[in-house]
Amino acid sequence: MDPLRFAGGRLFVLDQTALPREERWLEIESIASMVESIAGLKVRGAPAIGIAAALALAVEAAKIAAQGEVGKDALRRAGEALAAARPTAVNLAWALRRVLAAAAGAGERGDPAAWSDAVRREALAIWEEDRAASRSMARWGASLFPTETLFMTHCNTGGLATGGGGTALSVLLELKRSGRPVAVWATETRPLLQGARLTAWELLREGVPVKLVTDGAAASVMARARIEAVVVGADRIARNGDVANKVGTFSLALAAKEWGIPFVVVAPTSTLDPACPSGEMIPIEERDAVEVLEFQGVRIAPEGAGAENPAFDVTPARLVTAIVTERGVNRGPAYEFSAD
Amino acid sequence: MDPLRFAGGRLFVLDQTALPREERWLEIESIASMVESIAGLKVRGAPAIGIAAALALAVEAAKIAAQGEVGKDALRRAGEALAAARPTAVNLAWALRRVLAAAAGAGERGDPAAWSDAVRREALAIWEEDRAASRSMARWGASLFPTETLFMTHCNTGGLATGGGGTALSVLLELKRSGRPVAVWATETRPLLQGARLTAWELLREGVPVKLVTDGAAASVMARARIEAVVVGADRIARNGDVANKVGTFSLALAAKEWGIPFVVVAPTSTLDPACPSGEMIPIEERDAVEVLEFQGVRIAPEGAGAENPAFDVTPARLVTAIVTERGVNRGPAYEFSAD
Repeated sequence: MDPLRFAGGRLFVLDQTALPREERWLEIESIASMVESIAGLKVRGAPAIGIAAALALAVEAAKIAAQGEVGKDALRRAGEALAAARPTAVNLAWALRRVLAAAAGAGERGDPAAWSDAVRREALAIWEEDRAASRSMARWGASLFPTETLFMTHCNTGGLATGGGGTALSVLLELKRSGRPVAVWATETRPLLQGARLTAWELLREGVPVKLVTDGAAASVMARARIEAVVVGADRIARNGDVANKVGTFSLALAAKEWGIPFVVVAPTSTLDPACPSGEMIPIEERDAVEVLEFQGVRIAPEGAGAENPAFDVTPARLVTAIVTERGVNRGPAYEFSAD
Repeated sequence: MDPLRFAGGRLFVLDQTALPREERWLEIESIASMVESIAGLKVRGAPAIGIAAALALAVEAAKIAAQGEVGKDALRRAGEALAAARPTAVNLAWALRRVLAAAAGAGERGDPAAWSDAVRREALAIWEEDRAASRSMARWGASLFPTETLFMTHCNTGGLATGGGGTALSVLLELKRSGRPVAVWATETRPLLQGARLTAWELLREGVPVKLVTDGAAASVMARARIEAVVVGADRIARNGDVANKVGTFSLALAAKEWGIPFVVVAPTSTLDPACPSGEMIPIEERDAVEVLEFQGVRIAPEGAGAENPAFDVTPARLVTAIVTERGVNRGPAYEFSAD
C-alpha cells in the first residue's frame, strides 16, 4: 500500500486523514501544500514523510528549472519549510539533506535540466531504497519470531507509513506470507486513531485478523490474549538506542517488560540519529489540544478544559529487546549506533 | 455532584452518558430500567451503582407493599437481576445483600408498610454512609499529600461515581478547599471518555484547572508535567490488595513505579472483597466491541475489524503505594484485608 504517487512529474498523496472511509488522492503542486499535508498528517509515518518531502523538492526543482534557472537558494528555503513541518521524525531532515546535497552537486554545472533531474533522481532513489529497506527489515524481523503468531502493534507502520513496504507491519506480513497464522492486536492509537483506521485497514486487506484495543487496555490485554511479542516502528532512534515513537509506545514497552515478552522496534537506518546521544535530546512535537478535546469535529470535553497532546514519547533502550533495521538485528539492552 | 435523586418515593438518575453536553434526569420506575441504566452506564462508578441498586429495591418494595404484600421472593429476584447488570464492582452485590438482609429481617413481622420502610431506610443508610465515607476518605487521602499540587487521575471518581462525595477526586477537592493550588491531569479514559466528559466537568465546576491527556500519553506526561502522585478509585479490591479498576489503571501504575511517584487508590470499604484472595479471581467485564469500533455512533474502524473491550484491569498490590478507605490509610506493598 503506497501512500504516494509520482508520475509524469505530478505528485499525489493519499489523504490518510480520510481513511478508511474514503481513498482520496491530493495533488501536491507547491511546497506549501506539502508542508500542510505533512503537518496535517495527510501523509504520515517517519519514512513516508521523508520520501514525500524529497518528492516535493523534485516537483519544486522542476518548476524552477522550467524557468531556466538553477534555484539552489529557493530549494534550500523549500527544504527548510518542509523540515519545520514536523520536528520529531529524523527521516524528514535526513531525506531533505540528501536531496539538497545532490542538488548542490548537480547545480555546479549550471544546467537547469540536469540539476532538476538530479533532484528527481535522488528523491526517487530515497523512495526505492526505502522499499528495499522494508523488504530487508521484513526478513530480519521475521527471523526473530520462529514460531510466534500473536502480536501487538501500535499506531501504523505499514505501507502507508513508508514508501509502500512498511516497518513493524512488514515483519508481521512477512510471517503471514510465509504461511504463519498471524493474528494482530492493534492499539487504536488516540488521539488520531491510526491503529483503528489505518493498521486495521492494511491488515484486513492482507487477510490478517485484527482486534483493536484501546491504548489503556493494551497492557492487560497483552496477558489476557497471550500476546507473544510487541512490534512497533520508530520516528527517531538516538545513538544509545532510546526510541522516540508514537505516544503510547512507552506504556506498551513497560507492559511488555512486566509480562516478560519481547519488545521489538523496526525502523530503517534513516530513522537512526547517531548525532543524538540519548532520548532526552529528541524534540517531541506537541500538537494542538483540539485533537484531544474534540473527536472528528465533535467536542468531547467541557469548555474550559485544556489538554496536553505530545505526539510522541521516548522508550528507554533498556526496555527494547531488539532494534531491526535493513542491515540486521541489533539486540539490546546496550546499543551504540554510529553514523557510518 | 450527586448522580441520584430520591424524593417522595420517586427515583431519578442523572444520565451520565449525556454529560457534559446535557444534564438529563431519568426516572427509574422499574427494576428493568435500573438494570438498563447500570448496564448502559447511565449511572456508573462502583459506589454509585451500589446505592442506585439499593434505591431501586426501595422503589420496588414500595410498589409491592402498595399491593398489601411482603414480597421477599420478588425482592430477591429483583436483587439478582440488579446484581447481574455489571460483574466487576463488588459494591453492587454488597449493597444488594445489605438491603435484602434488612428486608428479610423486617419481613418476619408480615407488615408490608414496615417491610417497605425498612428497605427504604437501609438503602438511604447505604447512601448516607457513602457520603460520610467520602468525607472521611477525603481527609485521610489529603493527609498523604502535605505539599503536592500536581496530580494525575483516571476515569471518574467524583461525586458522580458515588453517593455525591467522590473517592479519589474527593481527596484532590479536599486539598483544593484547604487552599492548595491543585492542578489535575485527567486521562480521557477510552472508550467511553469518563475522564474527558465527567472528571473534567466536575473539576472545572470546583475551579480546579484540568488538562486532559490520552491514555497512551499519560505515562510520558507524568514525567513531562512533573506529576507528584497518581490517585485513582477502585471497583473491587482483593484481600491481598490487588485492585480492579477502570481499564488503563494498570498502565498508570506501571508508569508511576517507573517514575518513582506514589500510586494511591481511594475506595470505601464497600469496595473491599476479602473473600476474593487475589486479583486473578476478580471477574472482568467484557463490554461490547462496538464501544471501541465506533465513536458516539460514528464508525472508526474498517468493516471486518474486531475489538477486545475489557472494562477493567487489575493492578497488582505491589504497585500500589497506599489504599485509602474511610477507616484510614493502608500502606503497601503488603495488604491483608479482613471481613470485619
